[in-house]
Amino acid sequence: MGHPMFIDRGRGAARIFFVMMSAGLLTGICAFGQASEPLHLMPLPSSLQMGSGELALDGKFHAAIEGAHDARLDAAFDRFLARLDRQCGGIRRAQQDAAASAAVLTVRVAGPGGAVQSVDEDESYKLTVTSANAALSAATDVGAMHGMETFLQLAEMKDGACRLPAVTIDDTPRFRWRGFMLDVSRHFEPVDVIKRTLDGMAVAKLNVFHWHLSDDQGFRAESRKYPRFTAVASDGQYYTQDEMRAVVAYARARGIRVVPEFDMPGHTSSWLLAYPEIGAGEDIKALPVGFGIPQAELDPSNEKTFKFLDDFIGEMAAIFPDAYFHIGGDETKGKGWVDNPRIAEFMKKKGFDTPEKLQTYFNTRLLPILAKHGKKMMGWDEILNPDLPRDIVVQSWRGEASLAAGAQQGYVGLLSAPFYLDAQKTSEQMFLADPIPADTKLTPEQQKLILGGEICMWGEHIDAGTVDSRVWPRSMAIAERFWSPQGDRDVADMYRRLRVVSLELEDVGLTHIIGPKRLRRNLAGSETPEALDVMAAVTEPATFDQRYNGQHTDRLTSLDRMIDAVAPDPPARQEIGRLVSAVLDGDRAAAMKLRAQFESWQKAAPQIEAMAAGSARLSDETERARQLGELGTAGLEALAFLDVRVSAPAAWVDARKALIADAAKPSGLVRFVFLPDLQRLVEGAGGASIQRSGTKGTVFGTDQHLAIEQ
Amino acid sequence: MGHPMFIDRGRGAARIFFVMMSAGLLTGICAFGQASEPLHLMPLPSSLQMGSGELALDGKFHAAIEGAHDARLDAAFDRFLARLDRQCGGIRRAQQDAAASAAVLTVRVAGPGGAVQSVDEDESYKLTVTSANAALSAATDVGAMHGMETFLQLAEMKDGACRLPAVTIDDTPRFRWRGFMLDVSRHFEPVDVIKRTLDGMAVAKLNVFHWHLSDDQGFRAESRKYPRFTAVASDGQYYTQDEMRAVVAYARARGIRVVPEFDMPGHTSSWLLAYPEIGAGEDIKALPVGFGIPQAELDPSNEKTFKFLDDFIGEMAAIFPDAYFHIGGDETKGKGWVDNPRIAEFMKKKGFDTPEKLQTYFNTRLLPILAKHGKKMMGWDEILNPDLPRDIVVQSWRGEASLAAGAQQGYVGLLSAPFYLDAQKTSEQMFLADPIPADTKLTPEQQKLILGGEICMWGEHIDAGTVDSRVWPRSMAIAERFWSPQGDRDVADMYRRLRVVSLELEDVGLTHIIGPKRLRRNLAGSETPEALDVMAAVTEPATFDQRYNGQHTDRLTSLDRMIDAVAPDPPARQEIGRLVSAVLDGDRAAAMKLRAQFESWQKAAPQIEAMAAGSARLSDETERARQLGELGTAGLEALAFLDVRVSAPAAWVDARKALIADAAKPSGLVRFVFLPDLQRLVEGAGGASIQRSGTKGTVFGTDQHLAIEQ
Repeated sequence: MGHPMFIDRGRGAARIFFVMMSAGLLTGICAFGQASEPLHLMPLPSSLQMGSGELALDGKFHAAIEGAHDARLDAAFDRFLARLDRQCGGIRRAQQDAAASAAVLTVRVAGPGGAVQSVDEDESYKLTVTSANAALSAATDVGAMHGMETFLQLAEMKDGACRLPAVTIDDTPRFRWRGFMLDVSRHFEPVDVIKRTLDGMAVAKLNVFHWHLSDDQGFRAESRKYPRFTAVASDGQYYTQDEMRAVVAYARARGIRVVPEFDMPGHTSSWLLAYPEIGAGEDIKALPVGFGIPQAELDPSNEKTFKFLDDFIGEMAAIFPDAYFHIGGDETKGKGWVDNPRIAEFMKKKGFDTPEKLQTYFNTRLLPILAKHGKKMMGWDEILNPDLPRDIVVQSWRGEASLAAGAQQGYVGLLSAPFYLDAQKTSEQMFLADPIPADTKLTPEQQKLILGGEICMWGEHIDAGTVDSRVWPRSMAIAERFWSPQGDRDVADMYRRLRVVSLELEDVGLTHIIGPKRLRRNLAGSETPEALDVMAAVTEPATFDQRYNGQHTDRLTSLDRMIDAVAPDPPARQEIGRLVSAVLDGDRAAAMKLRAQFESWQKAAPQIEAMAAGSARLSDETERARQLGELGTAGLEALAFLDVRVSAPAAWVDARKALIADAAKPSGLVRFVFLPDLQRLVEGAGGASIQRSGTKGTVFGTDQHLAIEQ
Repeated sequence: MGHPMFIDRGRGAARIFFVMMSAGLLTGICAFGQASEPLHLMPLPSSLQMGSGELALDGKFHAAIEGAHDARLDAAFDRFLARLDRQCGGIRRAQQDAAASAAVLTVRVAGPGGAVQSVDEDESYKLTVTSANAALSAATDVGAMHGMETFLQLAEMKDGACRLPAVTIDDTPRFRWRGFMLDVSRHFEPVDVIKRTLDGMAVAKLNVFHWHLSDDQGFRAESRKYPRFTAVASDGQYYTQDEMRAVVAYARARGIRVVPEFDMPGHTSSWLLAYPEIGAGEDIKALPVGFGIPQAELDPSNEKTFKFLDDFIGEMAAIFPDAYFHIGGDETKGKGWVDNPRIAEFMKKKGFDTPEKLQTYFNTRLLPILAKHGKKMMGWDEILNPDLPRDIVVQSWRGEASLAAGAQQGYVGLLSAPFYLDAQKTSEQMFLADPIPADTKLTPEQQKLILGGEICMWGEHIDAGTVDSRVWPRSMAIAERFWSPQGDRDVADMYRRLRVVSLELEDVGLTHIIGPKRLRRNLAGSETPEALDVMAAVTEPATFDQRYNGQHTDRLTSLDRMIDAVAPDPPARQEIGRLVSAVLDGDRAAAMKLRAQFESWQKAAPQIEAMAAGSARLSDETERARQLGELGTAGLEALAFLDVRVSAPAAWVDARKALIADAAKPSGLVRFVFLPDLQRLVEGAGGASIQRSGTKGTVFGTDQHLAIEQ
């Protein structure tokens, strides 16, 4: 199994994980101590070795692709140079001025990669940087593109020019399938949102865009054979075939596969509004306004249904070249089948005593249709059934246990359950979830069946203005889980790098920071909504369920409240945690920073209350605003006790803990992120035994956080 | 001529201009005094009469189009409701819940308007709001769309719901041609930039998008007949024919005409790189990197040239349905003609003793080609020539005198000279420029020949990340000039409304505030670049010439410096001006605000200097940062003198004035906006006679500002 290699020379070895590849297995991983200029690669490469010296990207810089290559690599190289120019300045001019001299960065690929990128595409690359030059080599365009992303993350402005540390990176992903699913049915997302999402995915080295194109609430893909799909079941919001082809091309240009999903036989209200003749008899009069699971199923007893699907899948197969076609398959209750005498009779005749068996029959009938059009089947948990062949891909939304069970039966699978962005979990929580945890009971052979995972962004509570802040930067933490070695579990270092890459993501066009800011300006009616900014910095959205049940959301709900104007897992969570720990360790500078923070809450609170009084959209934040002010006061009082080294009276501590417990209850659809840390401060002021953070590699205990919330 | 009507009842009569229409002529205009809740309509309507009471957009709100209408109006109405919902909340739900009841807002059009919108389209509308309901009527879809924009600007959140004041608006534009020109040749702008620009134009009630599609530095329109235009002369950055059609459709959906410009016979390096055979003989080997005027002309002596243009114009005419086709025509020096013996011989034979005469011949030959394809000619100043018919449109980039001279010769014209956004003038300066000034010498008949004006955004120093901050919100001030009555010249009120509409513009998708903010984050490498924000708030970009000469810009120049991260004419100019005036009037609260402002400069200065030391992109801001800190100190000292009522010594005043004069010199490509006001403060501290502002309807004297700069 070999040994981890400890190498610590030159610049920037700080906290860089280093992993030896040996016989294809990860042999070890370790974190180095803090140094002055830590790198901020994300996802971490599988192997990195620091050299000595630096490469300056100055006026002599010149990059070139060497050897045979295709137009895709040329285009990627041009985009790379444009971004490098934006980041460092002067690159395009140097590129022109130094064109005649030998290239400082050479890029070389063995071949372009698959004409249609497969799950087996070689995505590895090798990047060597010395103080004289740099070389990037890869088996395919896709590997070279990953290497260019790494190069961009290595380049940092220093002493007036961009510089890269001397380094050797030999990088290959841990999982072959690193997906991101976007639901565009509940809320439509315009093509430019899709494109910028793909740009973000390229930074994250994600490689599958799973496009959830149909669901009860809307059918978003133009079919020319079945035009009623979009004519009557899309509210006019759909992608034309040209647009879908453009998205596929845009994705391919970035080394990303596109897997379309058309959810069936359930979640098909939109289908049956357009084509009731292939349904189980439900009379759908309009696209559902609500987000529940309306009763709507395709009719597996009707041969017309399969003829229809054959036509439709054939049409879509020509647009989406990927080997996989996602048929959904989730949450089909089958009540419409049981209620329909003709279908019930069909089930009886076939010996299907449950709707599940009829669904398996439906899937079995789909298999040859998919095969005819060159596609393999992919679906959610529920499609898993011993009657189906072993080359289908099962996407687990139910959890790790369900995924492992599938693998034990020989099914190829993907993990999605822990990666539901709308659950509003922290990056930490999602980063630590693993498709193959260290304590897996699966055999090595079974482990090979787990291709990776997919991040899921369901569409109930997002629109073009808010989707980015829900997806980014948290998806980077998951992308690192999919790409980097299993032992990469240093949460504090992950967050450190996440803050840097978050800015990089906005530079490629995402709007996760400016989007919520714009909404706050809109809510406040002011270009400088400072009070809302103060509150937003320390709050995050309620969970999906809290919003769904608290606001009774449906398709008519405007996504324009404070919950939409705050981002999940904001930096303040760690910052306040660190400051509280420092204060409890006697750090006076930290106390001053915390004091300023608490004072800003006191100042913002009455301003927000005043705004809330005049605005229907802010009116439900009155209580949160009041709490923010009170919690600021509590924090200042705690600091005062600590400052004079007098233990706060027990009654004071209890009253402040009650205040914190109160603030942990749902209100205004936003949650404070600092409550466990404020509680530590209050208890510290009371002289109670202090819970310190950071002992288990986490910034602060997630359990503490949850304990307070529940 | 009638009398202005003074009406001041109900809510919000403040500062609303009221104009009576009588026999088609404006009869008067006047501004009312300040009240508690001024409206913020922009552009101001030609006639507005306040009623009493308010209309609440509550759960009973329901809007409907009544009578016959087309799909364009339906789509506009849907967009209107979506924006109203975003602004007020609950509109879509109310719309559904109240569908059965009588409509609260009714929209009615007499007809759809021209199948191709003409310069004579009736754009007027009438909007009546009472406390019970509202009615919008218009002759055409376009008028109704303008009315919807006005309705959105009237709706304001108050007491927990959106409310509109009771009002009667009878509105029609002063000028029929209210254009915006965008140069996409020097820097390409992606389609989504074009679309959001059109969204902003719709808010501004602008009605012509003039698309400068070709110039020396790049040819941006796909031709299928002449594919080399984009294959070799676009760097791969161009619009496909489908994209151009989509832009035309997007514009039409918003009541905006699209006039394409293909600049000829000069500014044609890109043409001749692709098709040298129609050129005057210049050997163009690559797209020019520089921004000067390279020598490149089409060959008017060659019949092939006209055959080529016939083909090409025919192809483009099928894509752009507008009646006008812009042939450029500017800055053709004709040196290539004179230098080419064959063309010189041709000129001699024809009796053309100057290149201008050959250009007029060229234009004369174009006329029947344009007519054959159903187009009228439009071009820049230089096309004006007595040999051309009177129905061509001449766009004046040389100035008001040139425009008036054209009108006196019977030519139809547009004013553009004062509306060059890259000159980085203030909104005030551009707002006060007028295609037909009050003191015009033109006869009423000649005045009719002046159709309006066009805002011009040339592309040398903009890209997708910075274009919005150059265009908006300043274009709103010009749009008001084009739409609203001539007497609308209250600069302070214009700025008051501009600040509100600026936020509305970002809500429709523009990025003029967040774009520069994003660049500052990028420059600082921090999510919270406060020090740069402080400096950005009080600086604006250098003029076009200052940047061009100072930075030696060309197509390889990265647009990623501080100049790109600051916006022209920021709000601080007026704010500081107002505070200084108040302080000199003895206002202590204003002194406190000013003190905080000056202290923030002192604090930011060393932080920016430190950043500049480590960043090539910020290194030229060292001097400006130092000055910012010194000017802050000077301001604090002045406040101290004023506070203790002691006249500052003359030596102190002189030294501070020298500091201000120094800060007015070019440096770092950004300009401080507060220097005249700081100088007033310094002189006030010295007890000198104080120049007060605001006596002439301007917030502060533009001349003072310029005097210091020069």
